[in-house]
Amino acid sequence: MKRGNFITFEGTEGVGKSTQLKHAENWLRSHDIDVVVTREPGGTPLAENIRELLLAPRDEQVVDLTELLLIFAARAQHLNTLILPELNAGRWVLCDRFTDATYAYQGGGRGVSRKQIAILENLVQDALRPDHVILLDAPVEVGMARARKRGELDRFERETVAFFERIRSTYRERAVCWPERYHVLDAAQSIEAVTESLSRTLQSILDVHVADS
Amino acid sequence: MKRGNFITFEGTEGVGKSTQLKHAENWLRSHDIDVVVTREPGGTPLAENIRELLLAPRDEQVVDLTELLLIFAARAQHLNTLILPELNAGRWVLCDRFTDATYAYQGGGRGVSRKQIAILENLVQDALRPDHVILLDAPVEVGMARARKRGELDRFERETVAFFERIRSTYRERAVCWPERYHVLDAAQSIEAVTESLSRTLQSILDVHVADS
Ligand SMILES: Nc1ncnc2c1ncn2[C@@H]1O[C@H](COP(=O)(O)OP(=O)(O)O)[C@@H](O)[C@H]1O
Ligand SMILES: Nc1ncnc2c1ncn2[C@@H]1O[C@H](COP(=O)(O)OP(=O)(O)O)[C@@H](O)[C@H]1O
Ligand SMILES: [Mg+2]
Ligand SMILES: [Mg+2]
Repeated sequence: MKRGNFITFEGTEGVGKSTQLKHAENWLRSHDIDVVVTREPGGTPLAENIRELLLAPRDEQVVDLTELLLIFAARAQHLNTLILPELNAGRWVLCDRFTDATYAYQGGGRGVSRKQIAILENLVQDALRPDHVILLDAPVEVGMARARKRGELDRFERETVAFFERIRSTYRERAVCWPERYHVLDAAQSIEAVTESLSRTLQSILDVHVADS
Repeated sequence: MKRGNFITFEGTEGVGKSTQLKHAENWLRSHDIDVVVTREPGGTPLAENIRELLLAPRDEQVVDLTELLLIFAARAQHLNTLILPELNAGRWVLCDRFTDATYAYQGGGRGVSRKQIAILENLVQDALRPDHVILLDAPVEVGMARARKRGELDRFERETVAFFERIRSTYRERAVCWPERYHVLDAAQSIEAVTESLSRTLQSILDVHVADS
């Protein structure tokens, strides 16, 4: 059986990751692909508990390395108990954020050394990387204005615009480094326009998948 | 100001770590040493939250690497927000378990590769190691019989005797590798006899500390 595709959705707050992931799920199902939808940090009960620890606003200063280790702890659980078994069973996994977000948020945003992130990436993922990264790219303010409508802010959403600018830049840099893996969509457009670009991207991924079978 | 000593208490369940740590605290205070008492996993509010995740019995299979990363996440928080500041302020830190327990429980007990543990040890601790490890050594059954009286068992206490035998062996192997750091006390003796050995050990540590000042 052919292994499924591992596709992740990335971008700053409110760019439309959840919206477009839902579209991708529907589009793929309508093209007869078995799809599993999940998110990071999270995706299993224990990983969701870790997510709660990460997002909860708290008085205690969270050490950068602690945050990084918690993220990879959740990822190790998610990867081994859900993502890898699903991919190996031939299903496609759509994940709302993955390790590119760690490079962007903890690396670019918080200034954690990328070498430290790479050490943990290799420890937890070995050679596994997403097959495709859908990067929804928009000016930080556009996404924040959309996200603000969602109500109470978590520990990340309380950060400054400069923090999110560094995150956006890091994502864009990574897209330049891995052009075959990254698909950058202009997320400042209307939902319909983004959806249309995404459908074209999915079609190209599906074409390759079918040609390889 | 002279840095304080970092002293950890190790051993399998019920050997008397908490009991002897309390004695060490009293003994050092009576010798005019400023002492801070803490434990792992834990020692800060966030690290104690992580401890709860680790100890809670759960239906989901916990991936070994997840457990290892959670332990080091708690450790990074504890080390940077409590242990290092206290040591640097000249206080002695007495800690109920530390990284030797990770080698013993996750390495010896669960079979996690020691290389993986060492990668995380270096990432989180850099060159920091306990100045002294008090290893309370007793046959596994002796400690378990004592611990059983404490009531409900956590996720570790539910493990088999063979699991704890591997832990005890790992501790003993480590004591052989680092004789200058490890102090092995026969914990099968009466509380009073163990306490007396511990007092002698503390006196020798204090003598060196004073001679160095
Ligand atoms: N292209 C778009 N234009 C306008 N609003 C959008 C667009 N994409 C998403 N939204 C809206 O913005 C909000 C945040 O979208 P969401 O998909 O939750 O973003 P994310 O998951 O990236 O944080 C939602 O209310 C959503 O309906
Ligand atoms: N040397 C000893 N002989 C007999 N009982 C002991 C001894 N040391 C501790 N105990 C008792 O055994 C139980 C477990 O001791 P504790 O210090 O909590 O162990 P640990 O912290 O290593 O799990 C307690 O009830 C304690 O009073
Ligand atoms: Mg979302
Ligand atoms: Mg104890």
